[in-house]
Amino acid sequence: MRREPRGEPLSAGVVDLLGVLAYGELSAFDRMAADARYAPTFAGRVALAQMASAEMGHFQLLSDYLATHGRSVEEAMAPFAGPIEAFHDSTAPHSWLESLVKAHVGDGLAADFYREIAEWLDPRSRELVFGVLADTGHSAFAVREVRRACHDDPRLSGPLALWGRRLLGEALTQAQYVVAERESLAELIIGGSGDLAGIGALFRRLQMGHGERMKSLGLA
Amino acid sequence: MRREPRGEPLSAGVVDLLGVLAYGELSAFDRMAADARYAPTFAGRVALAQMASAEMGHFQLLSDYLATHGRSVEEAMAPFAGPIEAFHDSTAPHSWLESLVKAHVGDGLAADFYREIAEWLDPRSRELVFGVLADTGHSAFAVREVRRACHDDPRLSGPLALWGRRLLGEALTQAQYVVAERESLAELIIGGSGDLAGIGALFRRLQMGHGERMKSLGLA
Repeated sequence: MRREPRGEPLSAGVVDLLGVLAYGELSAFDRMAADARYAPTFAGRVALAQMASAEMGHFQLLSDYLATHGRSVEEAMAPFAGPIEAFHDSTAPHSWLESLVKAHVGDGLAADFYREIAEWLDPRSRELVFGVLADTGHSAFAVREVRRACHDDPRLSGPLALWGRRLLGEALTQAQYVVAERESLAELIIGGSGDLAGIGALFRRLQMGHGERMKSLGLA
Repeated sequence: MRREPRGEPLSAGVVDLLGVLAYGELSAFDRMAADARYAPTFAGRVALAQMASAEMGHFQLLSDYLATHGRSVEEAMAPFAGPIEAFHDSTAPHSWLESLVKAHVGDGLAADFYREIAEWLDPRSRELVFGVLADTGHSAFAVREVRRACHDDPRLSGPLALWGRRLLGEALTQAQYVVAERESLAELIIGGSGDLAGIGALFRRLQMGHGERMKSLGLA
């Protein structure tokens, strides 16, 4: 266990933000690990298991940082378990390819979101978020597999494109619930993005990033 | 991706050994990740998820090493998936405490086995195995939880002690099947341990290590 000097107290909004990210990592671990069981090949199983494990590395960074500031990751995460599990329950993959699209889209959305919010934080929190970000992008395997499968059987593309759209829709729906419930988090996001118009612009950028990712999967 | 110069060819016995270890890590990841879902607390869920992720770190070391020597980890693992899954299927935990005992016992048995075999290998393979070994021991949490639960309710100890004995029995049973099936692996172990009497002594040492671990859990 590292022992670092206690940092400055974190604002309620930052604790919320790190909490929602931490639970996001923990639940992504859980779901990807479960999906890895259904891989049709060893290579696929290993790739998804490695992506899942990377999530726990991010989780640890967030957890250590909170601890350094005298906050418990368990408490910080607790309010967000419900909405995040609801997202996963409403988007349980029904095939290996759906798992891969979800892993890639989820990883990418999270990375885009991290990149946006990093700018609004105090320098040390920003450094942390960038650290987590630097370790994303484990999903090249997913891109390769999905493209190959759709090349071999073009009828797969349509349903997978719809699946990708549904993933984005469910993620944004749950994100809106979360922000509506947590005043301090809403303030952080409004403060960071400027105003309500800024939030709208943020959401549009996330949607554009998603569109690019679907294109990279050959599912535009 | 690192690109290293091709190493010397590995003997069939060493490839088998690294293959069985690799599948052991992959399946331990899978089972612990699944068990983490049933944790009664966030802290427990995180601890088991971290143990699972550490397995994938070990897996990667083994996989990279095999690749450096021109061998595929998928092929090296394939013969061992059956017996290792049979072990897990015959020892599926029925409670959170059983999961923790299994995680601790499995981690410890694997570490003891790694320590024994490292001595028989060529210097570079030995270095690899020691590297993996240095990163085990994530199960302090399991020890703490099991001890506390048995302290609070001493009736739990008897069934958990039996569970620990069953885990060892099933592990040794499957290990014997594996060795009986794989001549080159048997040769490596016989060569390393000296003779059949040496194997007997090795198995006794593993049993003693297991006994110590059960004691550390308060289940002697």
